[in-house]
Amino acid sequence: MTYTFADKLGSLKPSMIREILKSANDKSVIPFSAGNPSSEAFPAAEIAGITADILANESTTALQYGITEGYAPLIGAVKQNLAAKLTIADTDDVIITSGAQQAIELSARAICNPGDRIMCENPTFIGGINAFKAAGLVLSGVDVEEDGINIEAAEKAASAVKMIYVIPNSQNPTGVTMSLEKRKALYQIACKHNLIIIEDDPYGDISFSGKTVPPIKSFDTEGRVIYAGSFSKTIAPALRIGFALCNKEILQKFVILKQITDVHTTSLSQMICYRFMRDYDYNAHLDSISRIYKNKCSLMLEGIEEHLSGVEFTRPDGGLFIWCTLPSGIDLLEFAQKAIQRKVAIVPGIAFLTDENQPSSSFRLNFSTPSEEAIVKGIRILGEVFSSAFNHEIH
Amino acid sequence: MTYTFADKLGSLKPSMIREILKSANDKSVIPFSAGNPSSEAFPAAEIAGITADILANESTTALQYGITEGYAPLIGAVKQNLAAKLTIADTDDVIITSGAQQAIELSARAICNPGDRIMCENPTFIGGINAFKAAGLVLSGVDVEEDGINIEAAEKAASAVKMIYVIPNSQNPTGVTMSLEKRKALYQIACKHNLIIIEDDPYGDISFSGKTVPPIKSFDTEGRVIYAGSFSKTIAPALRIGFALCNKEILQKFVILKQITDVHTTSLSQMICYRFMRDYDYNAHLDSISRIYKNKCSLMLEGIEEHLSGVEFTRPDGGLFIWCTLPSGIDLLEFAQKAIQRKVAIVPGIAFLTDENQPSSSFRLNFSTPSEEAIVKGIRILGEVFSSAFNHEIH
Repeated sequence: MTYTFADKLGSLKPSMIREILKSANDKSVIPFSAGNPSSEAFPAAEIAGITADILANESTTALQYGITEGYAPLIGAVKQNLAAKLTIADTDDVIITSGAQQAIELSARAICNPGDRIMCENPTFIGGINAFKAAGLVLSGVDVEEDGINIEAAEKAASAVKMIYVIPNSQNPTGVTMSLEKRKALYQIACKHNLIIIEDDPYGDISFSGKTVPPIKSFDTEGRVIYAGSFSKTIAPALRIGFALCNKEILQKFVILKQITDVHTTSLSQMICYRFMRDYDYNAHLDSISRIYKNKCSLMLEGIEEHLSGVEFTRPDGGLFIWCTLPSGIDLLEFAQKAIQRKVAIVPGIAFLTDENQPSSSFRLNFSTPSEEAIVKGIRILGEVFSSAFNHEIH
Repeated sequence: MTYTFADKLGSLKPSMIREILKSANDKSVIPFSAGNPSSEAFPAAEIAGITADILANESTTALQYGITEGYAPLIGAVKQNLAAKLTIADTDDVIITSGAQQAIELSARAICNPGDRIMCENPTFIGGINAFKAAGLVLSGVDVEEDGINIEAAEKAASAVKMIYVIPNSQNPTGVTMSLEKRKALYQIACKHNLIIIEDDPYGDISFSGKTVPPIKSFDTEGRVIYAGSFSKTIAPALRIGFALCNKEILQKFVILKQITDVHTTSLSQMICYRFMRDYDYNAHLDSISRIYKNKCSLMLEGIEEHLSGVEFTRPDGGLFIWCTLPSGIDLLEFAQKAIQRKVAIVPGIAFLTDENQPSSSFRLNFSTPSEEAIVKGIRILGEVFSSAFNHEIH
């Protein structure tokens, strides 16, 4: 038969990143295109020990249906952990989700109707862009500056939107952290225009400087911020454990939607995250993985300074990504293509734009997936590709 | 702030079953209302052994991001297992989903637009009803008879719908298995009206008689059947592993939607299911759990015959449920209420109707969750409630 599909899918493409990820199964490619956390940062031995204990002593809880809201001890541990960053309102609560991706998607589907507008940083996370498009939403992109979203542009865009989506810490793809002033200003904009904010914070627990900026949720007196967190970068992504902290009225809608989406999140994964937080020094673990990421990031930045002179780049204080912008006159897609011919994969910036018809001379580099050797080698190769492109252009 | 939510959510209620499940945490209640598989049927020791081995030897695969389509060895094992029931077309493939619930939801979202009609058995699975409503679909309910869906009514309804949703084996909630003739007739209706069929088969591997009817997918020469399966009833539900077998064009749309929903299904759960099928005699395991369910079902049927004379009931050949219908003159909701006062929980039939404004004098009994002692005691109590209601009505 000839198939016809839902209209909303027309605007969606398979996540370019995930497609590149698949082709990057080619072990000879240096995966600066990836978005994976560092495998060496996974607490694999601890997880093995915890899991053996769970399956020996609590197998029925791990195997029988659980409730949609999530495993109660994990909800408690998440709230205890959040208490270091903010005060949880009595009217708020936590729901466990199948990754923060699910928290983003549930937000879009619960709050908005097809045709509603959502304000996003531009560029932003592909998984956010696609979730919003699949919910039939229209994206209003607002440029990201060195200290976060452009507030004047956000103010202008606010009157037409229903919701705001931002990644304030070590943003994907730019690596930029939003200043406290801008967080407060954005919250005021949301109050003035009666908007919900999705504050997506998968990277907030990985800080290179040790300095953290209070989340927008920490000054949310009106219950208009949905704070989404994840254990993908702090414990392990394939466990697929995220969460949302939000007003209980919103949470109840998430529960209804999650029931029909996947009933509940895998119990064993939830129990593993809980036990890891309970039985180990979680803050010491975060410090240790922050050091791993910081070292890799520094190494990549040094390489960029040495080999990519003339390329603009961000200096992230956490997360997984550095955002680079080519000088004018160099064609980005040609650059990316020549890089992949030399077995170095990068993601062209266009993948992250809210309007894919915009031009982009930027690209995203991931420093968490490749080994230190691969970082050094890959940046050197990018430098060679850059030099030859640059020489080609100016001569 | 005052919240406004997506319009589609207006028609949805939290799954009555899952809400009852939560309140049935009261251990003193006999949970005939549940939908849980028997915990004693879980291969807990085998899972503990497998998991220890996976985390000792393949921890990076278990913890790092995987691909959206699913863990390749599990896809292979699922296909090998399906080969006993049907021939997989070259144009078809398998995607791993987070429970069969996700396969149902992805089908609705990928194929249909809001406002489209879907034909469902009436009564049917609440998770299906809610998934379709959340996708903005309108339900066309077609009555279920002793041998499955009413074909004349299905033929009439077909011209107005885009998709058909059926549970041909041991249907939830009725326990009815659709005859081969009706499966073929329904497929012909789908061909004539150019419809997609979702064949939801969570119970097909649990057969009391050992007789099985070929799935609709087995005569799907046109690629119009999406066959959804699950390990929730055969290995363990909290692993949240299901799958869909369908045409690759449809599967590609599922991949796009699944990327934005939960990125991929928990890898450890997928690896556990694969290893259980690889390392153990899976068919012997299915025989063994079928015996557990058959015994519990027989015990419940005996109790019904003894204590609920005048109540009509189905005799399922598998699955988890028996469907009972009260004689006229007895108010079902009053009966259910008196039963819960006596600490026996049942689910009123209205929960499963495609049009909740229809009347219903039926209720669903689950025989897999309660112990054998609880089955005997609970049915005796229902008999007492029934006798007193019946006497009350006729005197």
